[in-house]
Amino acid sequence: MRERLIIRPGEPARLQSRDARDGLGLEDKSEGKELLEELVEEMAVLQNRLWAESQRSVLLVLQGLDASGKDGTIRSVFTGINPQGCKVVSFTAPSTLERSHDYLWRVHAACPGRGQIGIFNRSHYEDVVTVRVRGLAPEKVWRRRAQHINDFERLLTNEGTTIIKVYLHLSKDEQRERLQERVDNPEKRWKFQTGDLADRALWDDYREAFEETLTETSTEWAPWHVVPTDRNWVRNVAVASLLVETLRELDPKVPDPAENIAGTVVPE
Amino acid sequence: MRERLIIRPGEPARLQSRDARDGLGLEDKSEGKELLEELVEEMAVLQNRLWAESQRSVLLVLQGLDASGKDGTIRSVFTGINPQGCKVVSFTAPSTLERSHDYLWRVHAACPGRGQIGIFNRSHYEDVVTVRVRGLAPEKVWRRRAQHINDFERLLTNEGTTIIKVYLHLSKDEQRERLQERVDNPEKRWKFQTGDLADRALWDDYREAFEETLTETSTEWAPWHVVPTDRNWVRNVAVASLLVETLRELDPKVPDPAENIAGTVVPE
Repeated sequence: MRERLIIRPGEPARLQSRDARDGLGLEDKSEGKELLEELVEEMAVLQNRLWAESQRSVLLVLQGLDASGKDGTIRSVFTGINPQGCKVVSFTAPSTLERSHDYLWRVHAACPGRGQIGIFNRSHYEDVVTVRVRGLAPEKVWRRRAQHINDFERLLTNEGTTIIKVYLHLSKDEQRERLQERVDNPEKRWKFQTGDLADRALWDDYREAFEETLTETSTEWAPWHVVPTDRNWVRNVAVASLLVETLRELDPKVPDPAENIAGTVVPE
Repeated sequence: MRERLIIRPGEPARLQSRDARDGLGLEDKSEGKELLEELVEEMAVLQNRLWAESQRSVLLVLQGLDASGKDGTIRSVFTGINPQGCKVVSFTAPSTLERSHDYLWRVHAACPGRGQIGIFNRSHYEDVVTVRVRGLAPEKVWRRRAQHINDFERLLTNEGTTIIKVYLHLSKDEQRERLQERVDNPEKRWKFQTGDLADRALWDDYREAFEETLTETSTEWAPWHVVPTDRNWVRNVAVASLLVETLRELDPKVPDPAENIAGTVVPE
């Protein structure tokens, strides 16, 4: 799956030419559900080993526009996972304390420890893309951040964290349908904020900012993957596959017991 | 379930007179499994509301001797839970940085935020019980900690956290069987540490220290519950019931949408 979704380092992201409704070769929803179940099961086994091994970490970075399904991805892909060893951090607008530090300060503090799978629901990429689109800092400031981020992610990778970056790729039509559903369905209405429409009006600016940022920050050590997200079941299979393929490759091992334990008799 | 397991504030814990094999009125393992499934399902719904509401927190404190099943409880009871909004923290021996602060510093920092369910796998109670049994600090130091802890937990409760404290009550025989199983089963051997036997040799001291500490820190605002843990399926039902009963009482509500949203048309 990684090969299919990756943005090759040094090549443009080309979001326009990627189909947000792509089925990734899956036949239908029921095949997707079945596959997801298998993947989640395998992920649970591998996560337990990663946790027992306690040497390395995995960090999933989830980015995407409003209604692209970040919360839904976490719920669907990680609900079968032992929460011990799994840490979700949502990055919303920074607090006063956080704003008194550089923008990577709170991100660094939230990174997964050895043995953990960390999930970033939004991330330091907001400090490039959103800051740029909404004009929250001058170009000079956000322009140099891609370099900081590449350097920061190299540090994490060098020190034992495997980073999986996922851009949830949503079509403009599908976003309209999802936002309208939030308005029309009283059960979902609390999720709707009028600011969502202001962001939607900036659709082209966001698209351009992401196109450029994904291109600049897809590195050999932490490449981006573009996951088609118009259909939730395709998205779930894609994200779960990226996780499982990465974990398989890491091949975490339950640690060796201390020596001379075999044969011990536990006293009454 | 709470009524059945609680240590009434002001009354002694009386661990000796509580049966670690108690079935809590459950007929058999299959009834336990069925009940657990129902509870986990209800917990998932209530947790989603707690998260959406984002006003209050729940903190589960898990204590118990080696092999009492703290990890297993977390795995069994919380694996069906959305990890977004659920935060597990394991307290092991404090780091150099942590030791340079008071013992509640790292605990406070790890408390759940609004909307979250926090789970402490071991906790500040180690700073009373283990410190006492292993002689890591003079009596004068650990003796006054029950008061600190009661005060600290009142603060948390006043400010919106509901605390559920669970002591996993294991019999000495069952501990022997479980430790022996870890020695004998090559798949589990890595979990066994020779220090486990040293702690087992201090069984009576631990029992006495817990008896006293549970008694002193079972308060109106944060009472202890003693969960019989010799049978995993009984323990799982008990802990899940404590959570669900608490969440039902909190009765979290999905927030009201902002006004004037109904009828909005999302533009193309």
